[in-house]
Amino acid sequence: MARLKGFEKLTNVDEALAMFFKALKPRSLSSEPVAIENALGRVTAEDVVARTDLPQFDRSAVDGYAVIAEDTFEASQFKPKTLRLTRRDRLHQVQAKQVWTGNLLPKGANAVIMLEHTRMVRNEIEIVGSVTPSENVSKKGEDVKRGEVAVEAGTRLQAHHLGLLAALGITEFNVVRKPRIAIISTGNELMELGGKPSRDQIINSNRYVISGLCRELNAEPVYLGIVGDDEKEIRTKIVEGLEKADAVITTGGTSVGAADLVPIVVNKLGTPGIVVHGIAMRPGMPTALGILEGKPVFVLSGYPVAATIGFEVFARPTILKLLGVETVPRPRVDARLARRVAGALGRRVYLRVRAFEQEGELHAMPILTKGSGLLSSLTKANGYVVIPENREGLEKGENVTVHLFSPVAGGRK
Amino acid sequence: MARLKGFEKLTNVDEALAMFFKALKPRSLSSEPVAIENALGRVTAEDVVARTDLPQFDRSAVDGYAVIAEDTFEASQFKPKTLRLTRRDRLHQVQAKQVWTGNLLPKGANAVIMLEHTRMVRNEIEIVGSVTPSENVSKKGEDVKRGEVAVEAGTRLQAHHLGLLAALGITEFNVVRKPRIAIISTGNELMELGGKPSRDQIINSNRYVISGLCRELNAEPVYLGIVGDDEKEIRTKIVEGLEKADAVITTGGTSVGAADLVPIVVNKLGTPGIVVHGIAMRPGMPTALGILEGKPVFVLSGYPVAATIGFEVFARPTILKLLGVETVPRPRVDARLARRVAGALGRRVYLRVRAFEQEGELHAMPILTKGSGLLSSLTKANGYVVIPENREGLEKGENVTVHLFSPVAGGRK
Repeated sequence: MARLKGFEKLTNVDEALAMFFKALKPRSLSSEPVAIENALGRVTAEDVVARTDLPQFDRSAVDGYAVIAEDTFEASQFKPKTLRLTRRDRLHQVQAKQVWTGNLLPKGANAVIMLEHTRMVRNEIEIVGSVTPSENVSKKGEDVKRGEVAVEAGTRLQAHHLGLLAALGITEFNVVRKPRIAIISTGNELMELGGKPSRDQIINSNRYVISGLCRELNAEPVYLGIVGDDEKEIRTKIVEGLEKADAVITTGGTSVGAADLVPIVVNKLGTPGIVVHGIAMRPGMPTALGILEGKPVFVLSGYPVAATIGFEVFARPTILKLLGVETVPRPRVDARLARRVAGALGRRVYLRVRAFEQEGELHAMPILTKGSGLLSSLTKANGYVVIPENREGLEKGENVTVHLFSPVAGGRK
Repeated sequence: MARLKGFEKLTNVDEALAMFFKALKPRSLSSEPVAIENALGRVTAEDVVARTDLPQFDRSAVDGYAVIAEDTFEASQFKPKTLRLTRRDRLHQVQAKQVWTGNLLPKGANAVIMLEHTRMVRNEIEIVGSVTPSENVSKKGEDVKRGEVAVEAGTRLQAHHLGLLAALGITEFNVVRKPRIAIISTGNELMELGGKPSRDQIINSNRYVISGLCRELNAEPVYLGIVGDDEKEIRTKIVEGLEKADAVITTGGTSVGAADLVPIVVNKLGTPGIVVHGIAMRPGMPTALGILEGKPVFVLSGYPVAATIGFEVFARPTILKLLGVETVPRPRVDARLARRVAGALGRRVYLRVRAFEQEGELHAMPILTKGSGLLSSLTKANGYVVIPENREGLEKGENVTVHLFSPVAGGRK
């Protein structure tokens, strides 16, 4: 009977995450080689070290003439100097050789004077400005030196990282293998998208939400299907998930009621089983965090919004650790709260808001709903604001930090 | 000879973009149907309208008992009330029916009392609290009403959008076709990654940079290879690009020197050809923007950093318009500049910076380099700061806005 009275104790969010990480000791997954063509968005498994200097040689950084800088000193528009042109690979005093951007510097040359500051006169050039040694030269190793770390381990690779690796002649390197995340949807009322739901059925939308959230992190969702509220069925699927994946996420069957089956199954399946169940947060209070065979098991609410927030707060940082990525906070902006909102003393509230710009100032409009089931409260929002446990609410006009999951409308320049 | 003296006039960045858009009139591409499984990151081509209410019926939002709210009024812990249990689909006065989260409400019921506020006594329940009409009920259409727009046209689909569409029973819908972007690398000095460069060769890294930048926007790069500094070769490739793609991006051959071939070819190929050439920006000054057969042609610098900034400033907003996405500014944070930097009067400078947190404050450290060739200036940075045309420089400690292309290190909570 006691179970029906709700959770006896709710655990603070930070404490829950710390307990969970302490028990889990998440480490990044093994690595695999990847070709540069397929590396965008992957995470480097180790420091990638330059095996050559970049540039490999002193090169001209402009179109112009390679010169000995000292020959140009004191040249000006009013007092031009004259240099003899050569086509040889070695420059002697008072000589110049035409070079285009990227060309090797001839031996003896130590600077390049731009075309714009010269004038060709038969076989000579007149220079109307001076250059200092190394001016307009890309020095050997200036971008990256041989032996230097070009891209650090744990870097989520963007376009410019790939450019640098290509420039260094690196075609393949080791990245962290994509975490596979098993997804199990529980609930007698669930049906798959595609058919026509009867009056008692609800389409399984969490499958798409959780798969999408995994993909957005470049993890690989492994969807295992719907199971009814049946201990044996749930057990079979979780075992399958532990076999096939690096982590398991279930949705549904977490609230303290007759259907509170998933945490029971997780506890029966091994140790430590459920590490924390019942978290001082809204939505997502009935979330449970477990560990089986050293793998994380996230037991999320069946409510889509609560499942999303549960994923954000617990699964996201864990998956990032599996990927070996240090910290990836969401982009944040400071905004003024557009209306008063109630908090929930003792619980951390994740308030969905729409941040928007008006007259050069950012505002955050709370998306108010009663339940944690309303998906539209997420699609109407572009971020969330955290109401701390010790606040009864936030005041209209108060400065808040918005954690963005999509860009602010209005386009502040 | 005049051409060798540089551009006669540089066009302001905003003016250049406005001129280009005015001439181009970019419109979003045609649409194509996509299955929900493959829709993450795609952009809706039209409003997606709900064909059912969500929820479709009044449902219980909690585990508990469906009741007639009026029967519970004035019940309290000290003065419990008793209701008779029924299993029928219609509730009469002073009756209650057990329901789980998501269950249909029986006819006659208008609220649900949570399990925690009840106690079962044989065939009756004792209730120790009251509920108001609609309490703990997910009302029909509460999330989305039939006929309402569930997801607006021009929305970049995230996990929660897919969840909402699935919940509404929508399996397929129209998204904007992925823009195909032809990429042409020009330059006699270029070689493809894979072989060993001779002293005169440079590995084509721009191919990877520009392809990656396209993919990050969910556009499809169509790489057409390297061409030498030869008018005919360049012409052939641009014609191929216009046939195969929705836009063409070239890198290299833009500076005002002997190799300034791409803008010449674009102008010979049709009208209007080059709309603007020479932009008051650093890096990226020699960028040219053209239009052929109504398609944008971006003639970017051969320097990787200048090409990246040219893409950011001109190609990115154009591709977003082709995708039908309204505004997608990069995430921004305000920070204090960690050291003085010089600007370039009359030019807009895109200064690469590393934003980081120290003692609760955000700082932006300029990544100082002399050239626009250094890819490491991008990989060491996580964003850029714009130095306006009318500033000689920015002061140490000055407040600046950082446009982030990757998250801030340090993890501000």
